[in-house]
Amino acid sequence: MSSDIDTSIWVRLLECHNLVLAELRKSFEGECTLARFDLVANIDREDGLTLAELSRRMLVTAGNITGLVDRAERDGVVARRPDASDRRLVRVHLTPRGQRLARELIPAHAARLSTLFKGLDVGERRELRRLAGKLRASLGEAS
Amino acid sequence: MSSDIDTSIWVRLLECHNLVLAELRKSFEGECTLARFDLVANIDREDGLTLAELSRRMLVTAGNITGLVDRAERDGVVARRPDASDRRLVRVHLTPRGQRLARELIPAHAARLSTLFKGLDVGERRELRRLAGKLRASLGEAS
Repeated sequence: MSSDIDTSIWVRLLECHNLVLAELRKSFEGECTLARFDLVANIDREDGLTLAELSRRMLVTAGNITGLVDRAERDGVVARRPDASDRRLVRVHLTPRGQRLARELIPAHAARLSTLFKGLDVGERRELRRLAGKLRASLGEAS
Repeated sequence: MSSDIDTSIWVRLLECHNLVLAELRKSFEGECTLARFDLVANIDREDGLTLAELSRRMLVTAGNITGLVDRAERDGVVARRPDASDRRLVRVHLTPRGQRLARELIPAHAARLSTLFKGLDVGERRELRRLAGKLRASLGEAS
């Protein structure tokens, strides 16, 4: 009955995903969309990502990334700048305003997640992180 | 640094979700949308769910469920019928065509998931199911 386990894992992961996403959307309401937060958090983690790298990391299409970065640039949160050594390569950076947004929202987001995950003890959270990381790595190889 | 664990759990769960969803979308292509599969699988699991129950289980809005059920009914996959003892209550059932679709797609879906999760051994899959189930239960209480 191994396939029953797999279906059940997927249903549970899907529901956890949907429930967490709904809670995060609520907590961001008004301040910033979840997609923009994700963009800001990715550039904060590694400054100067290209659109292709952002698209891969955020798992959204190139077209959607372009629109998201366009709007964030228009709102003064990010800026596109050509790479210093290869000017054909465009890199996305946080503006001072984007950096302030990151400083404000990232800890709030982490605190929100800690509240959402408090039903698992520390050992379980570590194990869930390990298993989700192993699954992600194997899924990335498969695709 | 407990909040680092939580952020990392969420990023990994989100990426696993997105990667699995992309693979499932590919494998359903042409036959049936993932939303319709989810509808059929839910009614197959428990026949005669109401729109409100489907909306809650599939975590989609009442408006989206109505549209999804309308289109599935138009295509002869499901049928709305009033409850036998309370005719104001409308229940959704699979038609013979919907039942054939369930018989065909549910095992294919389970097999696809088993392939996707093969990077985890049986013990890890059981543990992931347990942890995701515990997390889902605690998220459900919180919201």
